[in-house]
This record gives sequence, C-alpha cells and structure tokens, in this order.
Amino acid sequence: MAARGKSARRKPAVRKATRPGTVASNVDLGSLPAALGYLLRRAQVAVFADFIATLDGVGLRPGQYSVLIVIEGNPGLSQRELCAALDIQEANFVPMMNGLVRRGLAQRRPSPADHRRYALHLTARGAALLRRARALHRSHEARLVARLGTRGRAALTRLLQALANL
Amino acid sequence: MAARGKSARRKPAVRKATRPGTVASNVDLGSLPAALGYLLRRAQVAVFADFIATLDGVGLRPGQYSVLIVIEGNPGLSQRELCAALDIQEANFVPMMNGLVRRGLAQRRPSPADHRRYALHLTARGAALLRRARALHRSHEARLVARLGTRGRAALTRLLQALANL
Repeated sequence: MAARGKSARRKPAVRKATRPGTVASNVDLGSLPAALGYLLRRAQVAVFADFIATLDGVGLRPGQYSVLIVIEGNPGLSQRELCAALDIQEANFVPMMNGLVRRGLAQRRPSPADHRRYALHLTARGAALLRRARALHRSHEARLVARLGTRGRAALTRLLQALANL
Repeated sequence: MAARGKSARRKPAVRKATRPGTVASNVDLGSLPAALGYLLRRAQVAVFADFIATLDGVGLRPGQYSVLIVIEGNPGLSQRELCAALDIQEANFVPMMNGLVRRGLAQRRPSPADHRRYALHLTARGAALLRRARALHRSHEARLVARLGTRGRAALTRLLQALANL
C-alpha cells in the first residue's frame, strides 16, 4: 500500500477510516481505535492490500497462492482435505481450482485409492509460477520487516500466535 | 517468504486449520503459517470469534456495536458520513440500521440542514444497551490482556498501528 507521509503525527490513525487510502474524516470513532479487534482488522486489511498488489505480478490472488503452496506440499491431496486445511468453503474452492486448471497450473487426477474423489497435483508450469510468487512474497515480507524491525517482527509473530490460540 | 517444508515439525500449531476449534489435520501448510498475513488473519478470526460471543449477550454484532458507538459520539451524523468513517458499504448499512431502529436503539431524523438526508441519533434505550455492551467489551479486552500481558498488549498495539499505516 502507498505509504502516507503524515503518519509521523501522533495518532492520525484514530480519525482515519479503516481502508488504507480512504480520506480522513472528522468523525469521532470514540473507543474503537483502541480496541484490539479493530486494530487487528485494520492491520490485516493494510497487509493484505500490499500482498494482493504484490502477487498481482504473477496473476495470483492470495487464496490461489495458498492453494498452490498446499497442493505442492501435499501432492495427491483431496479437495475436501485441502479445503479443511485452509478453511475454505468447497463452493468457493471449485471455481478457484477451475481457474488454476484452466491456466495449466494445477490438475485434478482420479484418485488411485478412491475413484469418487480427485487427487490434486501441481503442474511444472504451476511449480514455476509458484517459485516466482514465493520470490514476490519474500519482497512483501521484507517490506513488513523494514517497517517493524526484525525484533518487532519476531515479537508480533509471538503475540499473534498467542491470540490465534485463544 | 522462506519456503522450508520441514520447519513445521517444531510447532504443532502449524498443522492446525485456521478456524479455532477445527480439528487438526495432517496437511503440510509449508511456509504459510510463518507468513505475517496468514498470522494476522488467524489472530483476527480468533479475536473476532471471542468478541462475537461476548456481544451476543446484548444481541449485538460487532458491526452494530461500532455503529452505535459512532452514532453516540457524533449525534446527527449522516448515513454517508458514518459509512465512510467505518468503511461500511451503504447497501449493507441500511438493513443493519433498520434493525437498530426496529429495536428502538437508534433513530433516523430529518436533517435540519438538508432535508434530503437523515441525521442519525441514539435513543435512551440505545444508550443504555451501549453501556452494557461496553462493559462486555471491556471483559473481552481483559481476556486478551490476560493472554498477552500488559506490555504485550502495548507492544501489539504499536506494531499493528505501524502495519495499518503501511
């Protein structure tokens, strides 16, 4: 996301709307900007915006990137297992997978174990694209570390893991 | 992001699905669980789940709670201003506001300045419910602080603000 020059001022964030890039308003958000849920949401939106823009260079959405990573790491996985692991609705997964198949990045093959289900595989083209996507992802993470510092990044990871296991 | 398949071994959390409460799976998520966007998303989902369960005690969803807070803090605000400040689509706001009006928690009054728009106001009942909701919200935040520690909470706020202004 585009860095804003004014962020040096004490807390402009308090009066800004959630989406980065939205114009500041004079609306008093009261206690909301101090709420952890609100802060988490704003940070997530900003980080995803940068991530989405980054992956756009290889024509992937974040969900497609995750799916390619999991297929590569678990060749032959079923659609149901993949959806459960990534917490994706199967109804949303099917069109996403269709798109990956159409682009020649992944394949559905009949499962040798169970003919009623498909085994998911990456193609050579998918593996090559994933290598480029990973490099882009590293550049995105490097921007975040530049913003947070190495120790800040480590602290943030620890704190977010504590919350994720709430 | 660094792709190292085996680092998963050290942390069992790595092999769990995103949604808290989902059973662990044996799917290798590879580098994903180390990605900041992924961690942010998981933490946000867990914190929101707790927040939603907490506010359920007064029959409010998080979005309704935010709307009531902003109406209380900015009496007479227009619908458009409120939606911009909270980054809510107006199409989603209208049914939400209808529900608040139906329950007698908020009102639309003709704006004295501009008869084409409504000014939003809280009712006495809305203010009373909001007091109870705020107390519940404090209990939710207290659970998070118990998990993170006071210093952890402060550090997390600072780090998330740095990301939100990316």
